Amino acid sequence: MIVDVGGVKIGAGVVVVQSMIKRPIDEVDRIIEDIKRLKRAGCELIRVSVPNKPSLPYFKKIVRGSVLPVIADIHFHADLALAAIDAGAAKIRINPGNIKKGGLKRIARVARRGRIPIRIGVNAGSIDRRRFATPTPEALLTTVREAVDIFAGVPLVLSAKSSDIPLTLEVYRRMKIFGFPLHIGITEAGPPFRGGIRSGVGLGILLAEGIGDTIRVSLTGDPVMEVVAAYEILNSLDLRRHGPILISCPTCSRCRVDLLRIVNKVEERISDLSLPIKIALMGCEVNGPGEARDADIGIAFGRGTGLLFKKGRVVRKVSADEAIEVLFNHLREGGEE
Amino acid sequence: MIVDVGGVKIGAGVVVVQSMIKRPIDEVDRIIEDIKRLKRAGCELIRVSVPNKPSLPYFKKIVRGSVLPVIADIHFHADLALAAIDAGAAKIRINPGNIKKGGLKRIARVARRGRIPIRIGVNAGSIDRRRFATPTPEALLTTVREAVDIFAGVPLVLSAKSSDIPLTLEVYRRMKIFGFPLHIGITEAGPPFRGGIRSGVGLGILLAEGIGDTIRVSLTGDPVMEVVAAYEILNSLDLRRHGPILISCPTCSRCRVDLLRIVNKVEERISDLSLPIKIALMGCEVNGPGEARDADIGIAFGRGTGLLFKKGRVVRKVSADEAIEVLFNHLREGGEE
Repeated sequence: MIVDVGGVKIGAGVVVVQSMIKRPIDEVDRIIEDIKRLKRAGCELIRVSVPNKPSLPYFKKIVRGSVLPVIADIHFHADLALAAIDAGAAKIRINPGNIKKGGLKRIARVARRGRIPIRIGVNAGSIDRRRFATPTPEALLTTVREAVDIFAGVPLVLSAKSSDIPLTLEVYRRMKIFGFPLHIGITEAGPPFRGGIRSGVGLGILLAEGIGDTIRVSLTGDPVMEVVAAYEILNSLDLRRHGPILISCPTCSRCRVDLLRIVNKVEERISDLSLPIKIALMGCEVNGPGEARDADIGIAFGRGTGLLFKKGRVVRKVSADEAIEVLFNHLREGGEE
Repeated sequence: MIVDVGGVKIGAGVVVVQSMIKRPIDEVDRIIEDIKRLKRAGCELIRVSVPNKPSLPYFKKIVRGSVLPVIADIHFHADLALAAIDAGAAKIRINPGNIKKGGLKRIARVARRGRIPIRIGVNAGSIDRRRFATPTPEALLTTVREAVDIFAGVPLVLSAKSSDIPLTLEVYRRMKIFGFPLHIGITEAGPPFRGGIRSGVGLGILLAEGIGDTIRVSLTGDPVMEVVAAYEILNSLDLRRHGPILISCPTCSRCRVDLLRIVNKVEERISDLSLPIKIALMGCEVNGPGEARDADIGIAFGRGTGLLFKKGRVVRKVSADEAIEVLFNHLREGGEE
């Protein structure tokens, strides 16, 4: 099944990248700017939390100003979901663990009539504790199944997430049976470095098994980092490309330059490049061009010098100080020749 | 087969964590300090590149001062491998792509006699270009096989790495046939954030399939980050624990504190904690304790306040400013009660 969210198709074979706004909802202008930045980074859908009634006028303005289809994130109150649909939400995310059955039915009626996509987003942390002592795969799957029944006839996207990766893997492998597109993510993955790694493990395993139609990497930090992380995961499995891939050697005692400083500088400068090239920054001249011969372009540094290479072939020798400028000049002049 | 590297057993069912020194080899005292820091972070084996003859006296001193077994990383020169064995290396890593067959045979003879473990470390970038036009899985596996034949009777660890993850996966799935312990890694993964994600994907997939006996995450940056990354990958698959797991919500419009700043502060302070606990830092009081109920301890922040919770149960309410101090006091007082 393919679910159309404001023109973006989930379940059509291309993994859709999404993220979430983190500012208070009344910061409308800043949020609209965030969404522009996110779109440039490759984000395709944006979710905004609508925590209460006073948020609704702000949400409406965000929907109007957004360059991406907007998903409303709704907890606790069915009425908020209905109001968000009225306000133009392209999709509603609800957590069946915190909305009463009657409320879910009301949302389902409206969504069915209007063909409004709903994500049933089950979280291990909010399953019914009176029924399920611990968040087992069965508990999560039962919670999903009951919500799917209530939402019969509605275009659905499903998720059942946990910060526990083996649990998440087991649940998602069994979620295929529902036949709806799957939203994948690792909840509360943490700060960018550790959270990026955890998400890489969990989402990488799922994607490598062909599971996942839309991805959101949850990281504490700028949502643009979430989109960069999502593409890094998709890139690394050859599923999708957005912007350059940067590879760099870990350095060893042969390295005579401050490669980390150089790599950080290059990473910053490529963040708004959409060119799908592979750039290599290597700490030594001896191994450099050879080890990185699948890179489109790169520099292998020596003592005070750098060898600019393309596809493993040395193009010219430059001073280490000007190496990065020369690299970017070559990129501007058309990339790979 | 189990390979004993200075008392650390590779292939015995526990994935061994290793890293590599990045300083020039003549900085002996600093390197010995690095190794102490790495050991505290959970590193179990350390590799040092021995680039040339003048490095040997320094290497000898490092071996003598190191709190971890030291592996010598050797390229190009068979004589350096033999000298590193003399200097007390617990294991030698060679790249069969850049040492001549006669040299490999000389190393094999000495290693066989002395039962010196050898890692045959093939890299996609340095396979013989005259024989293999591109680094296909067959090219890498053939290169490994030929070296394994030369080193018959030597305790071996094998690796065949690439910065291309699908290639790496295919090669490692077929490396099992050799019957030797496998060293896994993704070469030139890049700077910490992107490289951590790429390594998480590649190494996570392998480890989830039961492939990998020792792991080194290659990142441009402090080698301690490599060890943190390795444990984050192992943690996330419930394979090994070292130190706390930090989970934190990605924040949304409900969040009223600067959670990223708080998370960064906590991440810094836990870096030398070996307590295997799960800490949660959540941006809102409403979802916080519930969503993070599998955490041993955590704080759910509200407007100016924080709820300290343990295993999903609220223990006390504190001001947001003092929340972190209270958290660490509870940790010092014995963790989980």
